[in-house]
Formats: sequence, C-alpha cells, structure tokens
Amino acid sequence: MRNECKETPLQFDLLASDDSSAARCGRLTTRRGTIDTPVFMPVGTQGTVKGVLPEQLQEIGAQIILGNTYHLYLRPGHELVARLGGLHRFMNWELPILTDSGGFQVFSLGDLRKIDEQGVRFQSHLDGSAHQLTPESSIAVQQALGADIMMVFDECIPHPASREYVAASTARSMRWARRSKDARTDGGAALFGIVQGGMECDLRRQSAAELIDIGFDGYALGGLSVGESAELMYQVMEWTLPLLPAERPRYIMGIGTPENLVEAVARGADMFDCVMPTRNARNGLLFTRFGKLSIKQARYLDDSQPVDAACGCYTCRHYSRAYLRHLYQSNEILASVLNTTHNLYYYVELMRQMRTAIVAGRFREFRTEFYRLRAVTGEA
Amino acid sequence: MRNECKETPLQFDLLASDDSSAARCGRLTTRRGTIDTPVFMPVGTQGTVKGVLPEQLQEIGAQIILGNTYHLYLRPGHELVARLGGLHRFMNWELPILTDSGGFQVFSLGDLRKIDEQGVRFQSHLDGSAHQLTPESSIAVQQALGADIMMVFDECIPHPASREYVAASTARSMRWARRSKDARTDGGAALFGIVQGGMECDLRRQSAAELIDIGFDGYALGGLSVGESAELMYQVMEWTLPLLPAERPRYIMGIGTPENLVEAVARGADMFDCVMPTRNARNGLLFTRFGKLSIKQARYLDDSQPVDAACGCYTCRHYSRAYLRHLYQSNEILASVLNTTHNLYYYVELMRQMRTAIVAGRFREFRTEFYRLRAVTGEA
Repeated sequence: MRNECKETPLQFDLLASDDSSAARCGRLTTRRGTIDTPVFMPVGTQGTVKGVLPEQLQEIGAQIILGNTYHLYLRPGHELVARLGGLHRFMNWELPILTDSGGFQVFSLGDLRKIDEQGVRFQSHLDGSAHQLTPESSIAVQQALGADIMMVFDECIPHPASREYVAASTARSMRWARRSKDARTDGGAALFGIVQGGMECDLRRQSAAELIDIGFDGYALGGLSVGESAELMYQVMEWTLPLLPAERPRYIMGIGTPENLVEAVARGADMFDCVMPTRNARNGLLFTRFGKLSIKQARYLDDSQPVDAACGCYTCRHYSRAYLRHLYQSNEILASVLNTTHNLYYYVELMRQMRTAIVAGRFREFRTEFYRLRAVTGEA
Repeated sequence: MRNECKETPLQFDLLASDDSSAARCGRLTTRRGTIDTPVFMPVGTQGTVKGVLPEQLQEIGAQIILGNTYHLYLRPGHELVARLGGLHRFMNWELPILTDSGGFQVFSLGDLRKIDEQGVRFQSHLDGSAHQLTPESSIAVQQALGADIMMVFDECIPHPASREYVAASTARSMRWARRSKDARTDGGAALFGIVQGGMECDLRRQSAAELIDIGFDGYALGGLSVGESAELMYQVMEWTLPLLPAERPRYIMGIGTPENLVEAVARGADMFDCVMPTRNARNGLLFTRFGKLSIKQARYLDDSQPVDAACGCYTCRHYSRAYLRHLYQSNEILASVLNTTHNLYYYVELMRQMRTAIVAGRFREFRTEFYRLRAVTGEA
C-alpha cells in the first residue's frame, strides 16, 4: 500500500460527492492555509497576476495562485527571490502558491531547446543565454521560490504526435517524476505527479499507474488543451481520472474555458489553472453567464449596464460597459485592471457555484442551467 | 466692489498664513466636498488617473482630480458622458473634479489648429476629424462633464514668444474669459479665470486686473512650465500672485517638480496639477525625500529596501525596490500601478506636510529640511 498519505504535507478532506457525476467537493490544507475544491488558480507568471494586486486577488476570492518556474528562474532568478525571502514575500502574497515545473514553457521553445535523458537544454527567450533544466534543478528552483505545491518536471507532449514519440516521452517523464520526488528536500512542500500519455488510452493508464506506484501528494493531468478537440480532452479525463486515488487532489493543468471546467469537475477534477481569464481580459474579452462579450464592440458605446448584471465583482458593481469600452479603446491601464478583475471573479465564482451545488446535491441542475443560459442569444 | 464672493459656489476659508513667506493654508468647499489647500490634483486625462482605481486614489489621500476637456470631448464625447450621468459617475469618482478648458491641449496641436477671435479650429489627434472649441463650447463641455470647478478657455502662450504676440494673445484670452463666464449656466460649478501675459510683467499685471474686474471664483496662472527657467517661473509668480484676491484660491496650472511646488506654495499658491508623478511613474522614475530614483538601475536588483523607508504608501509598505525593478524590467502592468501609487502619494503627502508646517508656524523649517535632504547624496 502507498504510505505517502500519512506523511503528506497536503491534507485533503473530501466533503461531498455528486450522485449524478464524479464531481466532488473537498478541502486542501497546505502549510499556508486551506483551499476549497474544486478551485481555479489564477496564473502569476512573472511574480504577479497581471493587472491585479494581491489584495484585489483576495477580494476576488482567489485562494491559491500559480507561479511559473521557467519565467522566475530566468528573471529575476530563483536565488535572488530566495535571498529576498521567497516568492510569497517578494510578491506580497501570503496564501498558497503552486509552481509549475518549467517543463511546459521549455518545451514550448521549439528549436531553442534540446531534450536528453538528463533534462532539457534551452536558450532563454529573453537573451538567448544557454540553460539546462532537469528534474533536480526544477525542484531546486521551486523550493527556492518557496512553493507550497510543486510539480514534477515532465514533457508536455505536443498534439498530434506519433504513438512511438508519445510512448518514449511518457516513459522518460515517468523516470523524471521519480527523480523529481527524490530531489525534494523541503518536506513542507507538496509534490504532484503529472500523468502524460498523449491521447493514447493505454499509455495514460500506464502513466497513472507508475505515478501512483511512486506516490505523490496529488496527481495532475498534463498534455491537455494542446490542440485536441474538447471531446478528446474529455475522453482522456474519463480514461484517467477514475484511476487516480480518490483521497488525493486531482489537477488538470492549463485548462480552460468555463465549459471545460464544468465538464472536468463533472469527471472528478479538483484543481485548475489557465491564462484564459487574464489574457482574454487584456484583449477585451469578458466572461458572462451568457458567454463571452467583446467590450470593444460599438454596440457597447452607450451601454450603461454592467458587464453582467448578476455579477458581484468590483468592476460590475461600479462600472458600465460604456466606461470599460472607453478605457479599452483609449488603451488605458485601467482597462486591463478592471477586465482582469471581472474575468478572474467570473472563474472563481464559477468554482464556488459548483462547490455549493455539489454540497447541496444540485450539481446536475447547476450544469443544466449553466448550459441553458449559454444558449440564450443576444443577452451579452 | 466685486460681488462674486457672495455668490460663489466655491467657499474658501483661510486657516493659517506663514510669517516667513506668502504660504497659506485653507479649505475649499465645493458641492462635492471639501479640499484642504495647498492641494495637488492628480491628472485623470481620459476619465481615469492612469493606473490607479478611485479607491486607491482616496487611500492615497487625493481630494480632487483633474479631467481633460479636450480628450473627453473627443473620446468618448461629453454628450455620451452626460447621458451616462456625468464624469463622476462614469469613472466612479465621487469627490470634486476640476476640468481644464481644452485650450492647453488644443494649442499643443501645432499645425493641426487655427485660432481666430471666435475660438480655435483643430483636427483631432485621434482621427483627423475637424472640430472647433470656443469659450462657449468649452464651458458647455465642462458643464456636460459635470465639473465642480471649470476653467475659462484661453491660449497657453508658448515660450519664447514676441511681446506683440503675447500682448495680442493675452488680450484675446481676456475677452474669452469674459465670454466663458457669460456662458456658464450651471451655478453650482465654480469657474476660474486664468492669468496669461507670458513672461512680461506688465502684461501679467494687466491680465490679473482684467480677470479680477470680471470676477471669478478662483484665479489661475497659466502659461508657466512652457520651457522657461525655474527662476523666471518664480519671478512670474512673484509678479502676479500678490495681485490676486487673498480671499480666493490661486491655482498654478501644470507644475511641477516637488521643488516647484514648495516654491510656489511659498509664494502664495494653493492648487496644483501636473502629469509628472503619474508619467514619471510609468517610466520608472520614483520620487523620494532625497530626490528621484530610477528603478530600472542595476543597483536595485537585489535591494530589499522600500523605495523610501520614510514613505507610508501602499507600495513602500509592501514591496522592495528589487520587486519593483523586476516588474519594470518585465514590463508588467503592476509596475505602473505600484509606481503611480507611490509617486502620487509622494505628491499628496508633500502637500500635507506643507499644510501641517504652515498651520504649526514651521514652514520655514520645513523648506530648509526639504532642501537639506535633497542635498544628501547617495541615499536614494
């Protein structure tokens, strides 16, 4: 039997399960506080969630944020961050931080990187300087940053990819997962394994089994939202999520749309991160109950309504669509600030609504209503 | 005798005067609340003080902000703002707003504008469309925006300029000042006259006398900080400020550095606006007791100190120079937000310190200490 549950720095209490689906509601306890799941984690790539202050994030209801190992390793450097007291102090965020392993960004570099068994050699996108990330150095960086939840170093496999490539890459990522665990010295930081295996059912199953055998504080699905259809993404979730230990949190990395989150929760996932709400905000795309709204459109020129009349965020409580359109058209900083505030609130609130529905035994009704509103045309 | 003081929508109570200079401390009462003078007014060009939320401005201690008639007239348009409930509601700012007349921006357009007795014809810097601003239309725009303090439409004379040009322009601006007053229909909005006259003593005096004869709720000096030396700027203040009614507020438009503000207050000025703190912030230039600090410098890479250890602003209470440098180098939105917060606090706090010193009879000591700290090298 796995024994990591007894020693884990990450307690996970299951509070409720849905009868109509695999959805579940729980509470994660880290060394920096508790997190209600399912949870959405805003992405703070370079030591800041773009456009919002820590206090604003907390007002929005964010309970944990994500930091990017690749970016912080390159600039300002993990050793500098460590000397200044760690990432929490550096960026003035006291709640939990999850760091990715750097793998996703490094593998996105294309020609600028080269993989071998040891790790990945790559050139900085900032200045072309040469670097290497390995499972050991990735964990060292994440520990220097002071992450509360760390991720194993792995390869995010592109899609489509040959079965041979997927098999070899996944096998290597599993060896790297073991090395990542062996490299951990900070017993207070949790470590998650990441299931790979591309879009191949048997390779996903095998990857999950190997990770469970190694034993982690939580389990993630990687290699999704890489260009596959939503149907295929959900298929991979259905193959894989039931294999993961029910008593450990399940994290689906890098997704997604509000619909993706609802479907992933219905399939038993607990944790999510995505740049979509923050990046879309900066591009003037705002989430509402009825779907997305492009604030730059002329139809909002004179519109005194808030983005979503049912939304309780700071932006919707104080500003009209006309004002937000004006700020966006005028290229004002406040456009990004107010739009980001709204979109993050939308995501955080969506998760809260799902938690409430699961606890109340109404997740099926929630899901039906979620799609019904999206089918209403002409509202947003 | 002038009778406008009895009817003014802008009460001004003089609370204290300095023995060592012409510095004075007062309180302005507008229809949207009171303002302690001397006061610095952050500039909100396009319906937002760039990078900060209204709540943050209030936390900083801003009591009044400035809106730009030219920019808001062009985009989103004063009629749109009026339909949406006025500028205060549009931008979620409940405290007083002073609007300029649009003259300064229009005259900055160079070849894109043409002056005649009626007003100024100009082409929009946004799309080249043709427009005209006159004293009457400027007041109409300012009233549509819902300004609490309006400015007469005038020409900001460039420097250097021939005496003939200055004389003719000033005479026309005085005729426009009278037309501006005649155009006011909103009795709840104060209207300030603007002394012009370039760098010519007799023309400044004549302009002041003409404005006093017309009668305004307050008096401004325009046409300063247009390229003249600081000495000449102070000279113009010394020629002009003593001529203005002591029982009315005196506003020096568009200045300036912290040193400029201290010297202007010492010469009897009460109100100021300038883009310097906000614009410098976005360029990484931060104000401290010891002078300006350029946060991009490599010397701050590893610096765990706040920008100014004596500063009580949100930025200095929570962030290191190293973090601010990282944000600036990374081109993060939060760099502008945190730097703007600091610089505006510096300006607002500088005015508060002057008010306190004047009331306590210590303005001379304040001024000495202000310059002593700036002479300390290597601190910032």
